[in-house]
Amino acid sequence: MKITTQSPEIQKKVTTLLELLGEVNDLQSAAALLNWDQATYMPSGGGAARGRQLATLERLAHEKFTDVAIGQLLDQLESYRQTLAPETDEAALLRETRRRYELATRVPPSFTEKMTNHVADAYEVWAKARPADDFAVVVPYLEKTLDLSRQLADYFPGYQHIADPLIDRNDYGMNVATLRPLFSDLRTRLQPLVKAISEQPQVDDSCLAQHFPEQQQLDFGVGVIQQFGYDFTRGRQDKTYHPFMTKFSLGDVRITTRIREDHLGECLFSTMHETGHALYEQGIDASFERTPLAEGTSSGVHESQSRLWENQVGRSLDFWHHYYPQLQATFPAQLGTVGLETFYRAINKVQPSLIRTDADELTYNLHVAIRFELELALLEGKLAVKELPDAWDELYATSLGVTAPSPRDGVLQDVHWFAGTIGGAFQGYSLGNILAAQFYAQAIQAHPAIPTEIAEGQFATLYDWLRENIYQHGAKFTTAELVQRVTGESLSLTPYFDYLRGKFGAIYQIEL
Amino acid sequence: MKITTQSPEIQKKVTTLLELLGEVNDLQSAAALLNWDQATYMPSGGGAARGRQLATLERLAHEKFTDVAIGQLLDQLESYRQTLAPETDEAALLRETRRRYELATRVPPSFTEKMTNHVADAYEVWAKARPADDFAVVVPYLEKTLDLSRQLADYFPGYQHIADPLIDRNDYGMNVATLRPLFSDLRTRLQPLVKAISEQPQVDDSCLAQHFPEQQQLDFGVGVIQQFGYDFTRGRQDKTYHPFMTKFSLGDVRITTRIREDHLGECLFSTMHETGHALYEQGIDASFERTPLAEGTSSGVHESQSRLWENQVGRSLDFWHHYYPQLQATFPAQLGTVGLETFYRAINKVQPSLIRTDADELTYNLHVAIRFELELALLEGKLAVKELPDAWDELYATSLGVTAPSPRDGVLQDVHWFAGTIGGAFQGYSLGNILAAQFYAQAIQAHPAIPTEIAEGQFATLYDWLRENIYQHGAKFTTAELVQRVTGESLSLTPYFDYLRGKFGAIYQIEL
Repeated sequence: MKITTQSPEIQKKVTTLLELLGEVNDLQSAAALLNWDQATYMPSGGGAARGRQLATLERLAHEKFTDVAIGQLLDQLESYRQTLAPETDEAALLRETRRRYELATRVPPSFTEKMTNHVADAYEVWAKARPADDFAVVVPYLEKTLDLSRQLADYFPGYQHIADPLIDRNDYGMNVATLRPLFSDLRTRLQPLVKAISEQPQVDDSCLAQHFPEQQQLDFGVGVIQQFGYDFTRGRQDKTYHPFMTKFSLGDVRITTRIREDHLGECLFSTMHETGHALYEQGIDASFERTPLAEGTSSGVHESQSRLWENQVGRSLDFWHHYYPQLQATFPAQLGTVGLETFYRAINKVQPSLIRTDADELTYNLHVAIRFELELALLEGKLAVKELPDAWDELYATSLGVTAPSPRDGVLQDVHWFAGTIGGAFQGYSLGNILAAQFYAQAIQAHPAIPTEIAEGQFATLYDWLRENIYQHGAKFTTAELVQRVTGESLSLTPYFDYLRGKFGAIYQIEL
Repeated sequence: MKITTQSPEIQKKVTTLLELLGEVNDLQSAAALLNWDQATYMPSGGGAARGRQLATLERLAHEKFTDVAIGQLLDQLESYRQTLAPETDEAALLRETRRRYELATRVPPSFTEKMTNHVADAYEVWAKARPADDFAVVVPYLEKTLDLSRQLADYFPGYQHIADPLIDRNDYGMNVATLRPLFSDLRTRLQPLVKAISEQPQVDDSCLAQHFPEQQQLDFGVGVIQQFGYDFTRGRQDKTYHPFMTKFSLGDVRITTRIREDHLGECLFSTMHETGHALYEQGIDASFERTPLAEGTSSGVHESQSRLWENQVGRSLDFWHHYYPQLQATFPAQLGTVGLETFYRAINKVQPSLIRTDADELTYNLHVAIRFELELALLEGKLAVKELPDAWDELYATSLGVTAPSPRDGVLQDVHWFAGTIGGAFQGYSLGNILAAQFYAQAIQAHPAIPTEIAEGQFATLYDWLRENIYQHGAKFTTAELVQRVTGESLSLTPYFDYLRGKFGAIYQIEL
């Protein structure tokens, strides 16, 4: 990172800070590799020791990062920071480091330990309760999670809403005052669209449910993402159970995928999705390496990139104008007689359903908005844990018109509340969808030829625009700053609904 | 590990020591995974950051291990140690920890840094000098390596020979007084065998130099090593450039291999070789996990296991009585008309050659003995670095009857002197060959049915005997103690020469 000061004393302090942060980053990167290996290649016998090794690395990284030396350097550099223009790399480094330092130091280790132990217990109980379809057994655990989530928030006093500190951890600068009306609006405006589409004849997506051999699926996906701009000299793709993106350095950003041979969608779209995350990380300014700036700025912006490449690009008609003949050539027996239009409608089929992770592009946000609303009610004390299943069912009936036959496919379906706090985890998904549309609209406004290029299998203009405007900055700007800089506006639903109306209006041949 | 004392105070100290050692082990295991990944899957772009991450992990592991707290605990537990029977686990733990602590703390960090930096430079120069066939350019680097090797030895005063501390690091308890006469004897007795065989008609091994597709080679190897006893729930095999075994815990012991499609030997025998190392590590007493005892006891004993499974088992006629029909069925076009006897002779062909790593079972030790003798002469000051090529050529001519046309295939061939000290690295290879024969002879004496079982593709009796007598003990006994316990004798060349004479006498149909 460029250090601009002429003062040798300050230069030395910044250099020392960078070295300390680099050491923490090394430990975190090592932990990331241990996690990756556990999810890809590790034999089952390695599990017990791997857990201990990860705990040691994470503890050491935490100890090193919360060391008083870092706090002192930040204090000593505070007056220097105030002389810096806010948009400089150094100012951003000092701001982001301070933010993380506060996050890490305000919570006492004893609380973190209590939380970690409780989450381990809660997860274990949930993992059995879900297949057993037993909500009652998780109630005391969820109640304790709720209590601990409130306590965690209270370590960051001065909030407007108790969920704010929890949201802020993953989506810095976002809060309930912004998100509640946004998500409420989102839900209100989505419901009639979903209803209108539900009244249309069902799309036939049976063409996707055939036998598609693994290797051909993988090869096709690799061809696509290389063309997107994914750099295989700085990454690789491996198989796993739950696909994810992970990074060990800016030169090593890996993705994982899962293949279902009986369904074409899974591997292909999750590959594009994880690639979107990876393009963001691969595109970060190399001078940020080993600092807290060398990361996507929030879960919302991260998700906007996975969604943009998966949905705006990968589920577009333009994209398949170019790629569908190749796909047909890859799977002639399965798709040779299936027309482009049929295929395109199949991969964009809208159908209200019970399970969030299986939801289509349109109804997905309703799943998220429901969870967000329930989280807030729980944290506010307006909803008791034992009332959760009824509240869940009511919102699903109102919003999606579906009702889970039992908790397994309702309130017990997601791991999030059983693997962390209540509050803070879900908003990023919908923020991602909204931002994907807002950024994509801006890219097309800047370069109207982008859709035509996509229809020719060319993505360089789009990729370059994203790298220039979003990727290179890493965590330098907050979500709100970035949206403002990139679009000249604040977070808005307009481009997202324009996109949805245009796309699904055409597919279902109705005015939305 | 079982702590036997009734004293709560001592119990607490041992527990604390184990916890500190466990943390060091976690960091070392993480570093091992980073190294494994670098050698198997890491994209090229990850290299620079990986180097930094490894340096951080290794530095932290060293700092944690050399912490004064460990030294104090060892001091405080010294009187307790003296009350323990030497063959108890606790006594061994305290002995081995003390030994490593001395190795790690007696050398000042400034020297280690100087050595590390020099080795990095020397390696880089060698990596260019070898292809350029330029010995002159490495001379000043080797001279400095020699100087630093001597300095390193001097941190462990009281030695009989200056090479002793260097040898002791890898083969604890071994020294020049033992090894020089042993290796001299080895060389003297091997030379006439090699000469006698060289006078026989050449073995035709052209059957190995055909096209053997990669996947079939891999599958065949996996079938063999599973039968040996390699546990794939606690390990896996991946491809790499230079095959090695590595361990992240007793539940995760991995091997790697390299496949040449134009030669059958490479993958198959290196797979058996690395499996021998892995069987040793997988067989260690689970209660030693995360302690310094959870490792093979020396490079010599480790190599004895890789050699035993590769040579005594994998290159035996008994083994191929069972497996050759399977190999023929795997490669019918290549081997269908090649008889067992022809194949067996091909994989055991003796031919004096220039390159150690390509050498056959018999001549291999001559390569090692030559290096050992030259190392001692250098360390003793009886040979100057610039005289090394001539001395090398002379010993090769005398011992093997071959002369390198240029340094590339002579004195520049091995990385060892350019990647570490001069002294301490080579003796393990020949110790391994000698010990493999000595242990194997003992196993057959205990269970005379072993060869018959091998001829039926059964290895359980041999494996169980090795685990019981060698593997389970990890680093609990020194090499000398282990040999004495297992065979009732000290290190001896007799079983090795009995083995060589029997095997190669039969193959070449001469009295050796």
